[in-house]
Amino acid sequence: MRHLAVVAALVGALPALADEGMWTYNNFPSAAVKSKYGFEPTPQWLDKVRLSSARLAGGCSASFVSANGLVMTNHHCTRGCIEQLSTAQKDYIANGFYAKTLADEIQCPAMEINQLAEITDVTDRLNTATQGRTGKEYSDTLKAEMSKIEKECATSDQVRCDVVTLYQGGKYNLYKYRRFQDVRLVFAPEHAIAFFGGDPDNFEFPRYDLDVSFVRVYQDGKSAPQNHYFKWSKSGVKEGDLTFISGHPGRTSRGLTIAELEYHRDVVLPKTLMFMSEMRGMITEFQKRGPEQKRISNNMLFGVENGVKAQKGRHEALLDKAFFAQKVAAEQELRQKVNASPELKQKYGAAWDEIAKAQEQLKNIRKDYTFIEKNAGFSSQMYSLAMALVRGAEELPKENGQRLREFADSNLPALKAQLFSPAPIYPELEIARLEFSLTKLREELGSDHPFVKKVLGKESPLTLATRVVNGSQLRDVKVRQQLFEGGKKAITESKDPMIALARLVEPDARAIRKNYDENIDSVIRKNSELVAKAKFDVYGTNVYPDATFSLRLSYGSVKGYTEDGKKVAPVTVMGGTFDRHTGEDPFALPKTWLDAKNKIKANTPMNFASTNDIIGGNSGSPVINKDAEIVGLVFDGNIQSLGGEFGFDESVNRAVSVHSEAISESLKTVYGATRLLEELRPTKAPTVKSPPAG
Amino acid sequence: MRHLAVVAALVGALPALADEGMWTYNNFPSAAVKSKYGFEPTPQWLDKVRLSSARLAGGCSASFVSANGLVMTNHHCTRGCIEQLSTAQKDYIANGFYAKTLADEIQCPAMEINQLAEITDVTDRLNTATQGRTGKEYSDTLKAEMSKIEKECATSDQVRCDVVTLYQGGKYNLYKYRRFQDVRLVFAPEHAIAFFGGDPDNFEFPRYDLDVSFVRVYQDGKSAPQNHYFKWSKSGVKEGDLTFISGHPGRTSRGLTIAELEYHRDVVLPKTLMFMSEMRGMITEFQKRGPEQKRISNNMLFGVENGVKAQKGRHEALLDKAFFAQKVAAEQELRQKVNASPELKQKYGAAWDEIAKAQEQLKNIRKDYTFIEKNAGFSSQMYSLAMALVRGAEELPKENGQRLREFADSNLPALKAQLFSPAPIYPELEIARLEFSLTKLREELGSDHPFVKKVLGKESPLTLATRVVNGSQLRDVKVRQQLFEGGKKAITESKDPMIALARLVEPDARAIRKNYDENIDSVIRKNSELVAKAKFDVYGTNVYPDATFSLRLSYGSVKGYTEDGKKVAPVTVMGGTFDRHTGEDPFALPKTWLDAKNKIKANTPMNFASTNDIIGGNSGSPVINKDAEIVGLVFDGNIQSLGGEFGFDESVNRAVSVHSEAISESLKTVYGATRLLEELRPTKAPTVKSPPAG
Repeated sequence: MRHLAVVAALVGALPALADEGMWTYNNFPSAAVKSKYGFEPTPQWLDKVRLSSARLAGGCSASFVSANGLVMTNHHCTRGCIEQLSTAQKDYIANGFYAKTLADEIQCPAMEINQLAEITDVTDRLNTATQGRTGKEYSDTLKAEMSKIEKECATSDQVRCDVVTLYQGGKYNLYKYRRFQDVRLVFAPEHAIAFFGGDPDNFEFPRYDLDVSFVRVYQDGKSAPQNHYFKWSKSGVKEGDLTFISGHPGRTSRGLTIAELEYHRDVVLPKTLMFMSEMRGMITEFQKRGPEQKRISNNMLFGVENGVKAQKGRHEALLDKAFFAQKVAAEQELRQKVNASPELKQKYGAAWDEIAKAQEQLKNIRKDYTFIEKNAGFSSQMYSLAMALVRGAEELPKENGQRLREFADSNLPALKAQLFSPAPIYPELEIARLEFSLTKLREELGSDHPFVKKVLGKESPLTLATRVVNGSQLRDVKVRQQLFEGGKKAITESKDPMIALARLVEPDARAIRKNYDENIDSVIRKNSELVAKAKFDVYGTNVYPDATFSLRLSYGSVKGYTEDGKKVAPVTVMGGTFDRHTGEDPFALPKTWLDAKNKIKANTPMNFASTNDIIGGNSGSPVINKDAEIVGLVFDGNIQSLGGEFGFDESVNRAVSVHSEAISESLKTVYGATRLLEELRPTKAPTVKSPPAG
Repeated sequence: MRHLAVVAALVGALPALADEGMWTYNNFPSAAVKSKYGFEPTPQWLDKVRLSSARLAGGCSASFVSANGLVMTNHHCTRGCIEQLSTAQKDYIANGFYAKTLADEIQCPAMEINQLAEITDVTDRLNTATQGRTGKEYSDTLKAEMSKIEKECATSDQVRCDVVTLYQGGKYNLYKYRRFQDVRLVFAPEHAIAFFGGDPDNFEFPRYDLDVSFVRVYQDGKSAPQNHYFKWSKSGVKEGDLTFISGHPGRTSRGLTIAELEYHRDVVLPKTLMFMSEMRGMITEFQKRGPEQKRISNNMLFGVENGVKAQKGRHEALLDKAFFAQKVAAEQELRQKVNASPELKQKYGAAWDEIAKAQEQLKNIRKDYTFIEKNAGFSSQMYSLAMALVRGAEELPKENGQRLREFADSNLPALKAQLFSPAPIYPELEIARLEFSLTKLREELGSDHPFVKKVLGKESPLTLATRVVNGSQLRDVKVRQQLFEGGKKAITESKDPMIALARLVEPDARAIRKNYDENIDSVIRKNSELVAKAKFDVYGTNVYPDATFSLRLSYGSVKGYTEDGKKVAPVTVMGGTFDRHTGEDPFALPKTWLDAKNKIKANTPMNFASTNDIIGGNSGSPVINKDAEIVGLVFDGNIQSLGGEFGFDESVNRAVSVHSEAISESLKTVYGATRLLEELRPTKAPTVKSPPAG
């Protein structure tokens, strides 16, 4: 079903008739939108929308919604913060949060918000630098030049600069962001309504969630004023209305070669799904240890369950024989066209086989790479901190361009934010996670693997995990600061057992990373760039690149679809939320909602589905109308949209959003959040209302 | 690597040069064994070996090893019994068990042992009965005729008769067993040595396990004398020696069509692996609730972990592109040969497409069938009992031939053994399992599925599971007996909540079963029979059928292999066991072993690998030499053997066994099990030894 659309977009300079595409702001198909919907976004319109959009560095999207730095995103995007601010006594996840005054807003321990200020094309500069180079030399040069560009751009801690690799290396753009690191929580509803229906309803539609939260960006201790922000629509949207979504889709893999897709289908996804499923079972049962254990592991469980469902959808898409056959046909067509021209053949002809060979090599080191270097064997926040400190001591004294990418100067603010976050770390959960992942390390690599023997020695995973977690001081931010500032000497002399574990792992991890970077990643990057350029040469550049967690704009309309032969209407109403209430988690509404039931207009729109092309990372994106007003808030896609990783099918792929009216109605009627509502929809004369309930 | 051998066997009347094959006793390739190994089993030899072999009805193999009814099998095959006999105070899993006298032997609550007395070919009778029939009529007739044959054969409770479908229906044989239902535990070592290395070492080699246990069959309260049993070899085996394995491989799928293999690869195995992995995580963490919870869930965890590893191996085999391509080529060759002959084409030509169509239909009902009818949504012993009672009340009043197969007269003793087993049932584990599976039911079918709504109503999975488990009286055998004897009326009037749940599910489950039996299973059976007959017509009958948990004989020799470029020697020694001891579970030896360390001859063989073709179900099989003496005890296969589900590769597939010398040496030196040892290896004059330590 989804097949035709994707092939057209992949191979074609054909006009994109479907609402497909996660378009960059510097290549937006305004003419196509006009021809289909009668509205043509101007450059000024695009600038305004871009500057009103925001990114949560942790992996979500957001938008500015007032002149006073108010930011709207999903509840599930600020959930980490809400959990970190909660204690067993003050549980904001369970009870929600509302700052009645500006002074009541509380700082999130580890949140960063970015606003995309400028896009510059740096393709030529990077191509010139890497010209004629291959292998290690190619990737070293590319990395060094990227770091150089980013450093030149990042003139202060309030600026973040990322060179974004688009079209698998067909283009490189420099994205310059304004960075906000003081972010404070303003409003969050109860988890029970934010994630009403829980995992069973996740990625499903019809839907009834109030997955919203508000935060505010601060600078120098004061709310940071904004020239650009989205106004609140007076009426929201209805079926058939044109919708734009501006956000940060995290990753798609629509441009991958068949060899890469097969590797995903036959190796990565089955292994990941098993690993995550087992972890899911473990955490679900861990929650039964007690209410406090439930509270501290909720966010992690949500992440794992969400991930399982998303990966399962991707896997099923790749297992769809007809879908895969079309992917194969598209690649064959492109390769035939390349091979038909001696010039193209000479430039690009070998690229696919080179990628396939690198994939074969990757298979051989996959386990070591995943479990030792990518930390699948050491699932622990404290271990990640320890490894960042150990590696940082080694990397930071080097020349900027010589460092591993994550230690480049442009990444330092993010690294420091991670290292010095005061977010609480829970030893009991740390031990459970670390024991689990060490057990998987031993299982996947085998008890007789030299690395496994070196790490475990005579200890069991539980003994080791308990010793290094309980013996470590790394939960203390000050200790981390001392180790960071003390550099190599402090790290070498540290008796902290978690640091010692990271020190033990580091040489093995580094050797695997080096092999991966030099012999696999660089080959895939180089040849993917060639495949992308072959596509440009054969089909033109009127295409969108795969998602890269950089700002994109998609267009579409509010529209239902057909599932199992039945029509699914595109808009649900608030009354339906109460019909779905059973009283048992995850279908138990919070008391505030039950109390407000009779005051809520039952036919107020709750959630809606639209044809916009989105993917994970778009969570928290504003849905806007042609007047750039907020009409909704993306929080999910339907189950069919999960295959969007590999291709888009307009007939069933749907973005799922909270309707703007559901947000304002609940702020008013359920939560009495007068101050917030007034900021979102200013009225001429200030009104006096009853005190807030939240 | 494994590909050539399997294709040869699948398609070929070529002599089986490799040690491949799980041969039936009435079609054993004695001549091939002679030409390769110089020894030709005679019909008398085969009869003796057959009658000395045994089956545990629960899913393992075994052997008679004394004239007095002593039976040897694996520890992991009697583990359920050992756990059932244990309490928090007397933990035989942890501490082992040894009956110093005959009177100390304890009856296993739910164990049945079968001895294959006779094989009769009933193919013609069944073919005559089903001649010209298709669909529901075909499967009803087949089922009715099978039940009739079995009933005619099963003249008492001490006889069990199964019509075994061989070659996917190419042949039907009636297997008549002598049945023993009074089985008592004689000896079991500590779990720590029986399963030394635990899950990390499971399906690995080199290996160091004493996975052995002894039970005894009783009749009328006395040990049941045996005319046929295996004697103990004086010296065991060494590298290169010829070995036979007589046992009950559970299932292989080497004869499946490509459509069926694809369904396994792309649907069944990925889904099963996710389900089981999550359950594994859940039970692993459940064990942390406390020592008693650990004890009562150990057996279940072992089953799940073992299953995960086995299924993972199968999945990887099917994902091997070269392997799968050869399967495809073999099917194409057969179909071409069939289509080349007008007569064969007319008889068999459509069979493959008919199976493929049925597989497509199965995809559509898979979730309902698996979760509602096959109980994946109701993982609970008490639920299984309730459903057997509810269905039994419906089925048993019917004519024998009209009943669902599992309620046929021939199955009644097994049904009653299950229903009235005094094995303990643990409510806490029942609730955890049932909550888990109800959650998966809701997840897979969706919260809005009418069946899910009907079952859950306003309850959460936990609320429902807790209510039906805690409110049920079914843990009491007497209550089950009353309900069974009370028939339909007792079931209808029962207020037991677990019975009520089964009553609620039954009509839906029955409807799905009917659809499956009539429109899918019967089509696949009928057409698989045609494919099998096509193979006979094209390639002859000198082939072995897929495994069906019926007695088979395989031959081979003690032989190492090469893994990751390194030679793996085929025999480990007892000294190596001590080298592998770390002191931490699962690498912690029990105290008895540590105490005996200096008395054990370090170079005594411990475990060995041989080229025999085996699969799950062969656990507990005797390994014998040409003199039909015990030289070992199968307990595992190496990781490469897991692909044996779909094909055999002699270069790396290995059966893994405990060496007979390791068993006798540890009985003597570690456990002082004089009485048992004397029974296994009678000496002329009785000797007096120090009292047993175990």
